[in-house]
Amino acid sequence: MEKGEYRLRKEDVEDLAVGAAILGTGGGGDPYIGKLMVTQVLEKGKEIVLVPPESVPDEAFIITSAFMGTPVTLIEKLPSGLEALRALEALESYFGRRADYITPVEAGGLNSTIPLYVGGLSGRPVLDGDGMGRAFPELQMVTFHLYGIKATPMSLADEKGNSVILDTIDNFWAEKIARVVTIRMGGWASIAIYSMEGRQYKRAVIPRTITKAIEIGRAVRDAKKHGRNPLDAVLDVTRGFKLFEGKMVDVSRWIVAGFAKGEVKIEGLNEYRGKTMKISFQNENLVAEVDGEVVASVPDLIVVLDLETGEPITTERHRYGYRVSVIGIPCDAKWRTPEALKIVGPRYFGYDIEYVPIEERVKKAGVGG
Amino acid sequence: MEKGEYRLRKEDVEDLAVGAAILGTGGGGDPYIGKLMVTQVLEKGKEIVLVPPESVPDEAFIITSAFMGTPVTLIEKLPSGLEALRALEALESYFGRRADYITPVEAGGLNSTIPLYVGGLSGRPVLDGDGMGRAFPELQMVTFHLYGIKATPMSLADEKGNSVILDTIDNFWAEKIARVVTIRMGGWASIAIYSMEGRQYKRAVIPRTITKAIEIGRAVRDAKKHGRNPLDAVLDVTRGFKLFEGKMVDVSRWIVAGFAKGEVKIEGLNEYRGKTMKISFQNENLVAEVDGEVVASVPDLIVVLDLETGEPITTERHRYGYRVSVIGIPCDAKWRTPEALKIVGPRYFGYDIEYVPIEERVKKAGVGG
Repeated sequence: MEKGEYRLRKEDVEDLAVGAAILGTGGGGDPYIGKLMVTQVLEKGKEIVLVPPESVPDEAFIITSAFMGTPVTLIEKLPSGLEALRALEALESYFGRRADYITPVEAGGLNSTIPLYVGGLSGRPVLDGDGMGRAFPELQMVTFHLYGIKATPMSLADEKGNSVILDTIDNFWAEKIARVVTIRMGGWASIAIYSMEGRQYKRAVIPRTITKAIEIGRAVRDAKKHGRNPLDAVLDVTRGFKLFEGKMVDVSRWIVAGFAKGEVKIEGLNEYRGKTMKISFQNENLVAEVDGEVVASVPDLIVVLDLETGEPITTERHRYGYRVSVIGIPCDAKWRTPEALKIVGPRYFGYDIEYVPIEERVKKAGVGG
Repeated sequence: MEKGEYRLRKEDVEDLAVGAAILGTGGGGDPYIGKLMVTQVLEKGKEIVLVPPESVPDEAFIITSAFMGTPVTLIEKLPSGLEALRALEALESYFGRRADYITPVEAGGLNSTIPLYVGGLSGRPVLDGDGMGRAFPELQMVTFHLYGIKATPMSLADEKGNSVILDTIDNFWAEKIARVVTIRMGGWASIAIYSMEGRQYKRAVIPRTITKAIEIGRAVRDAKKHGRNPLDAVLDVTRGFKLFEGKMVDVSRWIVAGFAKGEVKIEGLNEYRGKTMKISFQNENLVAEVDGEVVASVPDLIVVLDLETGEPITTERHRYGYRVSVIGIPCDAKWRTPEALKIVGPRYFGYDIEYVPIEERVKKAGVGG
């Protein structure tokens, strides 16, 4: 085993599922399905090896592995896992070259686990980093795009055995065409995308995010074991801020062009009594307002947790009466440049507000703790 | 030049455009655009060589070249022609094998001319046959499908530079996924599809349909030159039946899932006075009824011609007041088996009627001449 490599253990998978759900900011698909898939691979006696980005050779060939689609349809139509492997193989066969490493594109949600499954099953090491440091709903919302890496050639594969290769003029067209294909395939597809060399990867990646997610999950587990508040443990390990606490009183949702969009209203409890928070989401939580004032927005992370258990809640599980706390976590610095904000800032999602880093918003509003 | 080969002349292109519009049965895209493209190739001094199917070697590699999409969007977004070549090259590069021959998939409409353009431009002979003997709206409505040939791997390319390769579990899934891709690409795309060997082609093809279309066009031209009725010339050369003559009084149309659907009502003139014909179409004319009685249906050809000039009219040009004659032409015998009727008979298109060959319908109804 090379220096810095890490062999995944079963308890890491539990922790990863919790940490990835938190970094998923309500979207990215419930990591529970991915947890089952990865556990299955380990139980078969296969190894899953995590490699830190800095130790990747410049010439190494890297392919990104992920699921794409509307998270809620994953529940209706379960993946077999083999489609993820077929997506990878379809792209490798198109290139005529085998990937030396598999990388996640999202540390948040289901997509933190899919590359571990694919890497473990096919005997390829998985890189400990991603292109978001969280979850985002569109293919080009990734630091790889920001650093000029092409999303295509990319492949999509469904559980029936259909596969598709795209080669597009830019990453926005990759998103547009891949999106309609996933819808037609039944709501989601496995994809292999953003292939690159080690030298490109090391510049573009947000490093150490998979072990970060494991660390977050472990902090929650430790807190529970020692009778501490898991929320505080999450805030500690993520350098996050508590934004609100309350009861869900209104949930509206609609599916538009393959995205689960919606809004949830939360009536304040305890020190937040008399106030109302509104969270708007598109797969992921995008903007949080308290009594009409924005307290957090993309690309910073807005996370909803079960008030009692500290368990993170995905947007498809919002329902009337749910008692929750809401926290905000600063995004990676790569997302805070003007170029980055053009593709992941609130305006891209149709909100006419300026992005202000959550640290400043929290200071100004006097919320957070 | 091999025995039976034919070098296309400029006047053939004019005749082909007319003949293909007739075999297009109202759909398949206006061959006018294709005529311009093919003429351009000939004017560049390139050769377009038509080869009869029976002279193709068993081991020859054949790729089908076509446009796919809603014909009306071709007018809004003109093809450059190069996307047709790129679709072919994308598929060849996927196979790692160059096509020895290009074949049309439709003798009707624009798709009769696209392979001539592609073949001429890229220096490849074009086969004188197709998989329909007419035009049809869906990818699997082709004798190649009937004879067990896979539509995929297939490619799609748009005028912007995007390309897509599909590999599907069956030809229906090829249709479903390719359809949403064409919509997303702006309404149409160039495709390369149904690749096969010479031995498969010779069994599955409807032979000599391109020269047949040229022959139909030439008959119309000759009739006009000699002051004869072009309608009679068309009936002669196609063994068709005159079904109706009248004035369009009502046209409704709607686009559903990438198809131009609609209905046109025609009020009888001359010997048809007092009667009303209704034609239902989905890209192509599908069912013709006179006063509620079916007089012709798919897969037989229903063709609408300008009453004065004999010029065929595509469904997107239907309009109030247009004076037309309507003819029916027997389809190829390959379409009249129970298996074939499952994929191109009236029931597939949602009409609860039995297919009856037009010769019998005409005899029974006492129409036709």
